[in-house]
Amino acid sequence: MSDLRKDPVTGRWVIIAPDRAKRPVHHEPVFRLASDRLDPFAEGNEGLTPPEILAFRSSDSAPNGPGWRVRVVPNKFPALRTDEELKKRGVGLYDTMTGVGAHEVVIECPHYEESLARLPVDNVREVLGAYKDRLLDLKRDVRLVHALIFKNKGALAGASLEHAHSQLIVTSVVPISVWEEMTGALEFYNYRGRCVYQDMLDQELDSRERVVLETADYAAVCPFASRFPFETWIIPKHHASHYETSSDAQIASLARVLKTTLSKLELALDDPPYNYVLHTAPFDTPELPHYRWHLEVFPRLTRVAGFEWGSGFYINPVPPEEAAEFLRNVDVPQNYGRAAADEPAVKVRKAG
Amino acid sequence: MSDLRKDPVTGRWVIIAPDRAKRPVHHEPVFRLASDRLDPFAEGNEGLTPPEILAFRSSDSAPNGPGWRVRVVPNKFPALRTDEELKKRGVGLYDTMTGVGAHEVVIECPHYEESLARLPVDNVREVLGAYKDRLLDLKRDVRLVHALIFKNKGALAGASLEHAHSQLIVTSVVPISVWEEMTGALEFYNYRGRCVYQDMLDQELDSRERVVLETADYAAVCPFASRFPFETWIIPKHHASHYETSSDAQIASLARVLKTTLSKLELALDDPPYNYVLHTAPFDTPELPHYRWHLEVFPRLTRVAGFEWGSGFYINPVPPEEAAEFLRNVDVPQNYGRAAADEPAVKVRKAG
Repeated sequence: MSDLRKDPVTGRWVIIAPDRAKRPVHHEPVFRLASDRLDPFAEGNEGLTPPEILAFRSSDSAPNGPGWRVRVVPNKFPALRTDEELKKRGVGLYDTMTGVGAHEVVIECPHYEESLARLPVDNVREVLGAYKDRLLDLKRDVRLVHALIFKNKGALAGASLEHAHSQLIVTSVVPISVWEEMTGALEFYNYRGRCVYQDMLDQELDSRERVVLETADYAAVCPFASRFPFETWIIPKHHASHYETSSDAQIASLARVLKTTLSKLELALDDPPYNYVLHTAPFDTPELPHYRWHLEVFPRLTRVAGFEWGSGFYINPVPPEEAAEFLRNVDVPQNYGRAAADEPAVKVRKAG
Repeated sequence: MSDLRKDPVTGRWVIIAPDRAKRPVHHEPVFRLASDRLDPFAEGNEGLTPPEILAFRSSDSAPNGPGWRVRVVPNKFPALRTDEELKKRGVGLYDTMTGVGAHEVVIECPHYEESLARLPVDNVREVLGAYKDRLLDLKRDVRLVHALIFKNKGALAGASLEHAHSQLIVTSVVPISVWEEMTGALEFYNYRGRCVYQDMLDQELDSRERVVLETADYAAVCPFASRFPFETWIIPKHHASHYETSSDAQIASLARVLKTTLSKLELALDDPPYNYVLHTAPFDTPELPHYRWHLEVFPRLTRVAGFEWGSGFYINPVPPEEAAEFLRNVDVPQNYGRAAADEPAVKVRKAG
């Protein structure tokens, strides 16, 4: 059982989750994953994960058995649980609430493969579709107000398993980064009557110096105030504050942009560890004219930043104009990665 | 030459510093420091650093030669420089300014030693005194508005040299973390007429469950909403928004608290990598009734946080009550570390 606690000065929420200490992660500084151990995310090993919440699978297959393409399961060591009662209380000066929420894992492919970028584009589309489906399902729980979807790729980016996966953390509070964006974007809207994300896109697509790629529906851009070398954001060109309102066609289009963007990063930077985070509006807001969902990708190239955590101040040695030019010029081969989901990258050991 | 850029949504400033890419840091994920190389921070090797800005040295010694105890030099690969002209400009939607500021290194001892905690308490006092002296000197430059003092201890915490040192980054803007604290503390003050830090201390010193140690002048506390396991803040019990107003007696007292706190962390956690950051009010504000300077220490124990950078949401597996109890019960031996500065921990190679 965990609890959420609010810093009384900054309003930043923290999850205090003692159960997470039980997960099998080495606390010594060994940033290498064992590659010879059993893959709990592989097809055939479904018994090694909690029962599935959602799976895209062939119609003749049974839940929690083989025959799936993308599978969503609860995190085995969840930071939050839905079966708690939501209780908010004050402890003197402090605010706290029970750790109600969800912590889920999106297993992105049935065969062993570390890279989402190297999966077939249809597979990427189904991953992005699973995000949408989970958001739509979770927002029916009125106790939950926000979902953070993120990926840790590589041990240096915080992954504890290599098999391609992403995670959802769904909470009864809004993460401070999203809150700050919402507040800043609303201020801009109140002052100028326009969405700041549209203004940004207009300027970027006009100058083009920080554009990595552009399609009819999306743009991938290295932001003007990039915190990290090769930080890249994918922003929809149509207005939408909530990711889960994306149409099937939009998700198919986004899949191509995401696969290409991640492939460029992999090819340019020799398969770097990276994180991405989807920023989307809280569940309990209607469509907002001032905010737009977007996906922030940041490769983890520089030495682990020291003081940034304590200051919010970032030093980035690579100007985003140079990063964008470099990424623009990376050609992604037509059949980068695997052409179809049924070609495993490596032979996989089955459980039992 | 670097420039500062502001994210138009969140207001977060970033330093884009292409020159920093030139410093001799391995960009591959090798988190190990070479221990057999020349120590540029050792006494006798003064020629390997830029000329000193400040040094506490024996009266018969000459600048930039041996005979010092604590020495402050410009960072050899500075993220900011004072010899630039401060120019602020808009680029369409975006705000930017030239990277005017200072980036200095406080070399904490003349002999090779990695740990500030293991230095004699008088040595720690002189380090804290050097912080004050540099702040007083730098705030005379009206272009500069804030100084961030921080320490990266150990490669995993971002250090690129082992010899004990800390850094100052002095900027023409206020880092967002300090800004958020100032704003939150002001809101609290406007609503309640009291300093939130005093209220926090009152509650902590009353309940004692998160107190690590307390002296007449300072308390070390694991904060209620700790982001990291064993995160510990040192907070003055007297009101002071600006660190540089500390008296000599207060700094001597703080040195004992800091040495003991860091020693407890080292003993409890087997010499962990850690960061500390001094949060203090901007130069251009008078003494503020709503804000109090404090020092935030965070050991780097958990796997590098993945999504935290993108969300501001932290998952901490160790409740601060448990961390504080553990640290309270660590006895620091009377002569932990070295008794006097003239006993080198290891033989040091001299330059030339």
